[in-house]
Amino acid sequence: MKAAFYSGSRTVTMGDSPAVQPGAGQVRIRVSHVGLCGTDLHIFHGKMDHRVKLPQVIGHEMSGVIEAVGESVDGWKPGDRVTVRPLDHCGSCPACLAGHSHICMKLKFIGIDSPGAMQGLWTVPAHTLHRLPENLSFELGALIEPLAVACHDVRLSELKAGEYAVVQGGGPIGMLIALVAKATGARVLISEVNPFRLALARELGLEAVSPLEVDLVETVTAATGGAGADVVFEVTGVAAGAEMMTKLPRTRGRIVMVAIHSQPAPVHLFQFFWRELKLIGARVYESEDFERAIALAAAGKLPLERVITRVLPLESLAEGFHEMERGGEAMKIMVRCS
Amino acid sequence: MKAAFYSGSRTVTMGDSPAVQPGAGQVRIRVSHVGLCGTDLHIFHGKMDHRVKLPQVIGHEMSGVIEAVGESVDGWKPGDRVTVRPLDHCGSCPACLAGHSHICMKLKFIGIDSPGAMQGLWTVPAHTLHRLPENLSFELGALIEPLAVACHDVRLSELKAGEYAVVQGGGPIGMLIALVAKATGARVLISEVNPFRLALARELGLEAVSPLEVDLVETVTAATGGAGADVVFEVTGVAAGAEMMTKLPRTRGRIVMVAIHSQPAPVHLFQFFWRELKLIGARVYESEDFERAIALAAAGKLPLERVITRVLPLESLAEGFHEMERGGEAMKIMVRCS
Repeated sequence: MKAAFYSGSRTVTMGDSPAVQPGAGQVRIRVSHVGLCGTDLHIFHGKMDHRVKLPQVIGHEMSGVIEAVGESVDGWKPGDRVTVRPLDHCGSCPACLAGHSHICMKLKFIGIDSPGAMQGLWTVPAHTLHRLPENLSFELGALIEPLAVACHDVRLSELKAGEYAVVQGGGPIGMLIALVAKATGARVLISEVNPFRLALARELGLEAVSPLEVDLVETVTAATGGAGADVVFEVTGVAAGAEMMTKLPRTRGRIVMVAIHSQPAPVHLFQFFWRELKLIGARVYESEDFERAIALAAAGKLPLERVITRVLPLESLAEGFHEMERGGEAMKIMVRCS
Repeated sequence: MKAAFYSGSRTVTMGDSPAVQPGAGQVRIRVSHVGLCGTDLHIFHGKMDHRVKLPQVIGHEMSGVIEAVGESVDGWKPGDRVTVRPLDHCGSCPACLAGHSHICMKLKFIGIDSPGAMQGLWTVPAHTLHRLPENLSFELGALIEPLAVACHDVRLSELKAGEYAVVQGGGPIGMLIALVAKATGARVLISEVNPFRLALARELGLEAVSPLEVDLVETVTAATGGAGADVVFEVTGVAAGAEMMTKLPRTRGRIVMVAIHSQPAPVHLFQFFWRELKLIGARVYESEDFERAIALAAAGKLPLERVITRVLPLESLAEGFHEMERGGEAMKIMVRCS
């Protein structure tokens, strides 16, 4: 079966990947669509060569149909429409034993630490599967994984209906967080500098401003009667975001750390003390976040189709990465594998 | 009545303060003991001249006996032994309306924003009073306020019996946090560099190490079977503390921000994401923290007397500040007002 291989710094090569016979507890999936994640771009840039084995098939935001089932797999059969929660935990580290297997201390991320979905047939453990309803397209099915990230972030924020949330950063994850937050009944403001993303956010019915054009603190203060935001989602990953995040919350407000800040950033710790703020780290998702994402998408009330700005054939994967690099006009880009 | 006035940079002058007639809702207290707080030293150093009115009586960690009661005061009478929760909230800001009046957005701290306890007679609102049991000495009564800070910090950390807590910084607040954490049933490690404080912590039955002498991360990792600390209390207020605080917690561990970091400090935000850590800001106390502090002190099971290293006459207040500045051999220093 055809497959796209990451084969070293900025190189993608098309090739052939043999169909792997599913072992006990595994299933083989005929892959339909795969979304391109910031992490995939990071791999493409050679930044994660310590984790991938060259040449490697990558990709982990996907949809497809079960094609074969190994031994000891209950509840799944060929023909089932599925997406994959691409986490493989050890089951025995302190984090797993404490019930936090999604952030297992030895977590293997399928599609980074092992082969990914950008191929015709993909064999994975059955414990990673989530069922896609018949009415959900394969495009939206491949959006479930990032939508589950957003559901996890919003769940950990304990956001309630009527609360006011600011999302710092309007890329795919920030946009999905804003949509999930709005679906939760919150008032939502996106802060983003890219004009295309600002315009798209407004098309999706979200309030969006550029912090280069308005005084964000004043905007939030005015919108909340002087109180400040109940929740701030930091999704920028840049120092300016780390600086701004403590200026927006109300007394006892929550900040959710969604972004990957690769370097320590100056943080105004005094504000945590003074206003009793809370910073909540949030990474990937748990099973219930996938189920919530699927339910939200299947309900058809979120404008998720508009978040997908391009679908390319698998052979054009490199072009997708180049479009992500340019940044301007892209939101979620996908490849079609079959 | 005699009073000690802060009268500008590093100057304390003794003088006379007239007995203020308690108005409606107020009581007048014959002050017994007043503890010296880091904030008092900060005022003495001229760092809070924008908030105090010179010359001003300061001090807010106190014990005493009600001497006179104003109109509309229920439940209090002359002779009652009391301490004061020195917070005066506005009642109408968003924080007050949300039930967080202890961090009111216009909070007046009695003893900073209005005259304090370092005088013979002190008139305060009756809503600030907490009753001291007969078996509690006035020395320990003046320790209730910082002990309530510790109770607040431990309560907000949601520390449970059997959990492992690290207290970064073994000054008076860090020491009291460690004692309260231990009374909660947790295992506690103090990290402190001052040899006097290390020795005192050990005398008090606490485990204490210097991060200059041991590898703190290794120590905590070994003590927790590789998991990491459940809770880290950051009480140092220095950049090294902000750097260390993210290295010690377990997956989903909590960090409580107790210290005042006057400058933004580099924080390894990636660790919040990666291990889903939580940072919890904690400031002053609420009524229930005072009640818990009084109950703990009255139960007589904490070695609180040993935390008080010196009691001076009010006239020697400046000497107390000088001893705090030297830092070496002091823990909690108090003055006697009557």
